[in-house]
Amino acid sequence: MAKELTTRAEDYSQWYNDLILKGELADYSAVRGCMVIKPYGYALWENMQAALDKMFKDTGHQNAYFPLFVPKSLFEAEEKNAEGFAKECAIVTHYRLKTDPNNKGKLMVDPEAKLEEELIVRPTSEAIIWNTYKTWIQSYRDLPILVNQWANVVRWEMRTRLFLRTAEFLWQEGHTAHASKEEAVAEAVQMLHVYADFAENWMAVPVIKGLKSVNERFAGAEDTYCIEALMQDGKALQAGTSHFLGQNFAKAFDVKFSDKNNKLDYVWATSWGVSTRLIGGLVMTHSDDQGLVLPPRMAPIQVVIVPIYKGDEQKALLDEKIHAIVASFKAAGIRVKYDDSDNQRPGWKFAEYELKGVPVRIAVGPRDLENNQVEIARRDTKEKSSISMDGLTETVSNLLLEIQQNLFNRAKQYRDEHITKAETWDEFVNILDTKAGFVSAHWDGTPETEEKIKELTKATIRCIPLENILEAGKCILSGNPSTQRVLFARAY
Amino acid sequence: MAKELTTRAEDYSQWYNDLILKGELADYSAVRGCMVIKPYGYALWENMQAALDKMFKDTGHQNAYFPLFVPKSLFEAEEKNAEGFAKECAIVTHYRLKTDPNNKGKLMVDPEAKLEEELIVRPTSEAIIWNTYKTWIQSYRDLPILVNQWANVVRWEMRTRLFLRTAEFLWQEGHTAHASKEEAVAEAVQMLHVYADFAENWMAVPVIKGLKSVNERFAGAEDTYCIEALMQDGKALQAGTSHFLGQNFAKAFDVKFSDKNNKLDYVWATSWGVSTRLIGGLVMTHSDDQGLVLPPRMAPIQVVIVPIYKGDEQKALLDEKIHAIVASFKAAGIRVKYDDSDNQRPGWKFAEYELKGVPVRIAVGPRDLENNQVEIARRDTKEKSSISMDGLTETVSNLLLEIQQNLFNRAKQYRDEHITKAETWDEFVNILDTKAGFVSAHWDGTPETEEKIKELTKATIRCIPLENILEAGKCILSGNPSTQRVLFARAY
Repeated sequence: MAKELTTRAEDYSQWYNDLILKGELADYSAVRGCMVIKPYGYALWENMQAALDKMFKDTGHQNAYFPLFVPKSLFEAEEKNAEGFAKECAIVTHYRLKTDPNNKGKLMVDPEAKLEEELIVRPTSEAIIWNTYKTWIQSYRDLPILVNQWANVVRWEMRTRLFLRTAEFLWQEGHTAHASKEEAVAEAVQMLHVYADFAENWMAVPVIKGLKSVNERFAGAEDTYCIEALMQDGKALQAGTSHFLGQNFAKAFDVKFSDKNNKLDYVWATSWGVSTRLIGGLVMTHSDDQGLVLPPRMAPIQVVIVPIYKGDEQKALLDEKIHAIVASFKAAGIRVKYDDSDNQRPGWKFAEYELKGVPVRIAVGPRDLENNQVEIARRDTKEKSSISMDGLTETVSNLLLEIQQNLFNRAKQYRDEHITKAETWDEFVNILDTKAGFVSAHWDGTPETEEKIKELTKATIRCIPLENILEAGKCILSGNPSTQRVLFARAY
Repeated sequence: MAKELTTRAEDYSQWYNDLILKGELADYSAVRGCMVIKPYGYALWENMQAALDKMFKDTGHQNAYFPLFVPKSLFEAEEKNAEGFAKECAIVTHYRLKTDPNNKGKLMVDPEAKLEEELIVRPTSEAIIWNTYKTWIQSYRDLPILVNQWANVVRWEMRTRLFLRTAEFLWQEGHTAHASKEEAVAEAVQMLHVYADFAENWMAVPVIKGLKSVNERFAGAEDTYCIEALMQDGKALQAGTSHFLGQNFAKAFDVKFSDKNNKLDYVWATSWGVSTRLIGGLVMTHSDDQGLVLPPRMAPIQVVIVPIYKGDEQKALLDEKIHAIVASFKAAGIRVKYDDSDNQRPGWKFAEYELKGVPVRIAVGPRDLENNQVEIARRDTKEKSSISMDGLTETVSNLLLEIQQNLFNRAKQYRDEHITKAETWDEFVNILDTKAGFVSAHWDGTPETEEKIKELTKATIRCIPLENILEAGKCILSGNPSTQRVLFARAY
């Protein structure tokens, strides 16, 4: 191996960090809790953005951009939202540096350049956006507003992890305004389905669609819908959320509209977001001890071709054939890289692209040329086979589809095998400690019980599945009556 | 007219603001100096991003993302750069809010959550990036690094104007690292040509490529290349810059590489950027007293179709035909909107799309259907004509190309007519005050003279054109000998 990786069995958390760093997705930075997204990781994000952005536009949304800063007085207007984020806010208090008279060549904050009102670096943009919507909305004719923003946000987290939880992260946040409750709820649900579609069909990550309990709701929301994924270590990951905000922000910012009968009412709202955290989820769903495993639809490089040769003459023969293959692949929309760099041996390259999670590797040597074939290696199953050059583009296109499907099936099988019913408290604790995954159990519906379960086990209610079947039972902890099971898990 | 606009003759500056606000490109925000980019304006930016991003990738660059914050100790490492931006820095000093004990429902900055080291909100990213490159570069094999970042930056400007100068703005910043001076200079020049290509062939904005004088150089650069455009009021606009940074940042952050002979040397650098300011330049190059005029390659909507009808029966007949036209346009890659909303009359819509700068408007009524024709109106010349429906898609495709070219030619003619040679100081001042535009004049090459000219006339050296012809002369102010003319102008 080119670079030593910790195995998952040794230390899952260290394995994850190794993959992110050695797979060149991201790097630590000089700023506490902030990361550098390296070109290979950013290319993944660009693929995610392109797919999501198209989905948003296909459902009638437009992009816009709102300020990075939120004046404190606006930030605190919606009290629950403000309270929820107050402890994680980076705050701008000054707008100028000056030379430090006591420290040659150094700068200091100019105490005379103190802002009259502090600015919060947005942890989320409801406040600044609803303060703007106030001026955009007068009548029902101005509704709905279907806007999305691609942006950076800052939440001053105490414990950070690359991609999963960083002080600054990249995300998209949709913010919509509607004339009725029904329409706003329908929008929140629609975007949840968009996220699930993206997670499953693009990222090959199976997700459970559900509602958050009150404790886990977004600060300021009436309802939070979510998609929950399961990582290989049995911990859950919240992969996306879509909030029905009711009239909370409209009331906080006094945003009213006149309906068709000229009656004034507060506007109904949603917001929804996914972030670079998805990259962490992608890594922890598919990858293995040899490195990243990327689903073809997300992979920056879908196919890498490595020539095996001795001397310039062999190389020239290979080049001719491989350039034709590359052109044919590109014409078919396959993201292909021909790595004919001469500073590393083929074995090193094989390990490197395995580490990078490239779905398909093709090796071609002089004997392959003679036999009109190539050697194909699949990253997901590590199977190798010799394949005819005739119809190679179609073969590889189909193989990419097959790998995409196989990764989803594999992850779904693991996930399905890790939804376990618990009927007693002992069972519940035992499953969490030995098998992990989701535990499907009855809960009495109170925040107090949920809080107590969290204290005792570190497990939280990940969601109340949308497709839940009502079923009478007794709460796993309190023994009080319950009408349905919910999904508990320890989570990232 | 649906919305009253100030004319250019009345007040150019107010006309510009009217267009931005009423054309729905942007809005003021609650944050001093920051704007909201509205969906129509953001769609323009997305078109700019898509074209530029492809050009960057075609020239071998990859995107990445670096932190929003720069620790003060890193920020001050490259002294000239730090000095250049120190007075415009938004500074994060705290990381938590708490409830204000004296003010129910309000929050205050928690004095116990003071950062040990202040964080500067990036005004530009050389410092944080070169501090990162230090860990990426050991040998010549790690070079070149060709990275670009799409991001927001903050410069606390005292006087702001929508798009042209805002406290926060969106931009891209390329940051490259090279093994030799020659390679770095070639990169800086290459990106200047990319910017000029984009400005002229996509935005239809003619630009002059040149070098900045020492006074106007980017803080920390050895040379700043720029493209300069001319607005309709005779003021110049710096539309993009590309900097050869020498080894300044490598020295400040101790970034060395070992060359093929194992000799250590500092790495050579470039950086280059364009921003949402380009939108302001686009508006001020082409628009007129009726509203925005957008070049087809940039326009979010290239063609709008307005039906003219009475009653549902006529509407149904029109719909059938127009839906076929729309499908054919879309298949040809034309961005078309069919505005059949029934809450506004055609006359209102005509004015609205004129205001929005849509290049081509098509109106179709029942009589047009009978005659197998449509009415086409060009936004650039305001000419109207009746055109056969046969081959309409090709007709319109060609018309869009013609409009694109016409806008460029028109702007270039204006620009060329506004490069005026001045031989004496009186002429120089007179041209600036009466005709405006670029003044081509001899300059003795000293920063002192340039500074004095700026004090006396508010004109600065916009650039020393790359294609300058050497010509002996005397400085317009000092009378000292000069080897070439440079371009002066008052500028945005």
